[in-house]
Amino acid sequence: MADHALNPALRDALEALLGPDLSTNPSILDQHGHGESHHPSRPPAAVAFVETEEVLVQVVRLCQQHHTPMVAFGAGTSIEGQLQCVEGGLCIDFSRMNRILQVNPGDLNCVVEPGVTREQLNQHLRDQGLFFPVDPGANASLGGMVATDASGTTTLRYGGMKHNVLSLHAVLANGDTIVTGSAARKSSAGYNLTELLVGSEGTLGLISRIQLKLYGIPEQVLAARVCFPSVHDAVMTVINIMQYGLAVSRLELLDACSLQAVNQYCQTDYPQRPTLFMEFHGSDAVVTEQAATAQSICEENGGEAFISATSEEEKKHMWHARHNAYYAALAQVPNGRGWVTDVCVPISRLADCIDATQADLEAENLAIPIVGHVGDGNFHLLFSIPPDDHERLQQAQRINQRLIARAHEMGGTCTGEHGIGLGKKSYLLQEKGETTVAVMAALKQAMDPLHLLNPGKIF
Amino acid sequence: MADHALNPALRDALEALLGPDLSTNPSILDQHGHGESHHPSRPPAAVAFVETEEVLVQVVRLCQQHHTPMVAFGAGTSIEGQLQCVEGGLCIDFSRMNRILQVNPGDLNCVVEPGVTREQLNQHLRDQGLFFPVDPGANASLGGMVATDASGTTTLRYGGMKHNVLSLHAVLANGDTIVTGSAARKSSAGYNLTELLVGSEGTLGLISRIQLKLYGIPEQVLAARVCFPSVHDAVMTVINIMQYGLAVSRLELLDACSLQAVNQYCQTDYPQRPTLFMEFHGSDAVVTEQAATAQSICEENGGEAFISATSEEEKKHMWHARHNAYYAALAQVPNGRGWVTDVCVPISRLADCIDATQADLEAENLAIPIVGHVGDGNFHLLFSIPPDDHERLQQAQRINQRLIARAHEMGGTCTGEHGIGLGKKSYLLQEKGETTVAVMAALKQAMDPLHLLNPGKIF
Repeated sequence: MADHALNPALRDALEALLGPDLSTNPSILDQHGHGESHHPSRPPAAVAFVETEEVLVQVVRLCQQHHTPMVAFGAGTSIEGQLQCVEGGLCIDFSRMNRILQVNPGDLNCVVEPGVTREQLNQHLRDQGLFFPVDPGANASLGGMVATDASGTTTLRYGGMKHNVLSLHAVLANGDTIVTGSAARKSSAGYNLTELLVGSEGTLGLISRIQLKLYGIPEQVLAARVCFPSVHDAVMTVINIMQYGLAVSRLELLDACSLQAVNQYCQTDYPQRPTLFMEFHGSDAVVTEQAATAQSICEENGGEAFISATSEEEKKHMWHARHNAYYAALAQVPNGRGWVTDVCVPISRLADCIDATQADLEAENLAIPIVGHVGDGNFHLLFSIPPDDHERLQQAQRINQRLIARAHEMGGTCTGEHGIGLGKKSYLLQEKGETTVAVMAALKQAMDPLHLLNPGKIF
Repeated sequence: MADHALNPALRDALEALLGPDLSTNPSILDQHGHGESHHPSRPPAAVAFVETEEVLVQVVRLCQQHHTPMVAFGAGTSIEGQLQCVEGGLCIDFSRMNRILQVNPGDLNCVVEPGVTREQLNQHLRDQGLFFPVDPGANASLGGMVATDASGTTTLRYGGMKHNVLSLHAVLANGDTIVTGSAARKSSAGYNLTELLVGSEGTLGLISRIQLKLYGIPEQVLAARVCFPSVHDAVMTVINIMQYGLAVSRLELLDACSLQAVNQYCQTDYPQRPTLFMEFHGSDAVVTEQAATAQSICEENGGEAFISATSEEEKKHMWHARHNAYYAALAQVPNGRGWVTDVCVPISRLADCIDATQADLEAENLAIPIVGHVGDGNFHLLFSIPPDDHERLQQAQRINQRLIARAHEMGGTCTGEHGIGLGKKSYLLQEKGETTVAVMAALKQAMDPLHLLNPGKIF
């Protein structure tokens, strides 16, 4: 820590600028040194709570003058060590920069500050019959979701963040502000800086304003769940549904182990069997037709007890299991912290990948919940490991190493949605190769030559 | 030209490598000095016809050793001067690198070489019940479509190129090959180099292999056309359809002047009135429902004679007008070359933008066809100007200048789909500002420090 204390001149300048919005309170520092994952906390030397773009720019200029690292912090929900201040420096907390600046129903878009959370936005939109679909589970900040290219249960239909950002303001390491994209639905004007910033994990620029696509709340939303004799049968169903081209909006798997954890955690009584959860969005006629098609594909694969729901209450109950799976898995182990894998493979290889992974877990005598955005070919093993249990941590690391090798062999990726952060730097190199990662590093060098923005991440 | 002749040592090395696949035939050179637009031809010093990635890499390494510019050429259909060899050098023609390497029906994707054209791909896919949707009108090469982030009539439903490229191979200016993205449907592994290359107009890397998303041919495709009393009524209909959230797959406008040109050019008898052309994709029940909804929205806005079609023959006839509008407009003027505007605005401003543009044309006493991907907020004025008619060229430039200023004022962009090339460099600067364009230039500098790849374009 001492090595990483702020330069006194910088500290004085930040105090003059921010007053009580600059904090060095140890518990605040610790809270800003980590996300929701197992990576050990690496606190900053100070936290700046910014409320406007103007103040943000001044903070960045001061840090640049003093060659001080800056790490952006939204809601603290990232899980690959994106928030760890490995070189100390200043954490810039965006949670108070949380105004919804515009909602444009006629253009189906909105403009928000980065600290707005997705639940806050959807609450605000509800009365206008609109919603923002990207749902990573956690109530993340939209700035954080841009930075990690978040996706989730609805990505199958609506895409992830990169498909839903129209334009951005970003403050560069030198304090300059760039404006990317436009309010038009499409543009071919120069390099796609929007997409370069989406998923850059705070290493290229600090997101200070976001224009997002919105969608009309569908006339009808039908949710369904169906149990299968085995995970393999459930996944073969997913492959058939995707290959059929059915326009399903959510398609999620929970294995028996996940549902057991959920039942314990939530006092529910879901059947403890491999289960697909689905959702269909559209007109009444359309969702009825789609659900019927899905049901027949499920039944061909041994699916049983297909249950559907359209009332808010029933749907809420149905999705409750999926939304609580992560926290239920954590609760399985006293003092457990989340340690989550994140491979994504081409859909035709998904059953092979999950089968081999299950066999690997069995060989290690482990029962680990498997949940996934299976329609996208993306699934997670939800390990829960106490911070001091090095043996179980190493075991999880070995299993993940084999899992990622398996995904790579199948043409997949080490991370479908969680990003690289600290946790997957070596896997990025395996996946892309030195030449490609060197190009990423050259882009970083071009945009942040002093390596002040979230140093030590990605590569 | 003489200034731009190849260095003799480079020429010898390329001849040794390529034999007859290196050409300096003047008509070949001239043909490679331009696309389909008004920009004067700027031929290369030589054209290399490459057939494999290995040969491409060798060609690039030789050019780099001799500090010689390289310009990629696909089907020659770009229209903002992307192909002009403004510093001479070598044109690399990809048209013979046109193998379809893989079709993976189970994963709804394929792998192609850059010289494959979209019609070639769709011909190849038809028997498997699959198609690739992006349709810019011309039978462009897929490498060229990646390079310009092409989009078109189906972008409303399926997105443009950036939404449909899974992964790329690209050869950098130094001859290194990078591999971006993966075969998985999503990935958060490092910076999004795929999207950076899509739309980079050959200035960052030469696309040497493309993995594309595919789609199942819809069970039913219903096409429809409907006439309106005025362009304003037609555009208000589009706004209502988009705001309603109707899942229309194509939504195109042709004004009376366009249909007059088409009727003359094709000996057809379309009503010479502002007309919307639409298409709906899905199951029988879904498209019937969608078309009925569209029809009632059209009628509320004064739409008349709503005609729909599902047979191949009728649909072909219906879309004939749209597909021939560009060539019909050119044919209006003897020896005319295309000079096409390309603004895209937020949908709520589309009627205002088109109304003001029509008034501007009237004030200049001009009848210029207006066609557009209006569902995206994108429309074109199809000027046809003989190359030596400087007065009409200047008039078109003035009108375009005012049109782009109008689009910018409305939050839109100077180019929805044609890119920057030579023609829109100053407008890019107006749209993005110096700071943002400087970041683009810094990325170019990082990836191509000798400025060998398509020099003089974008900025």
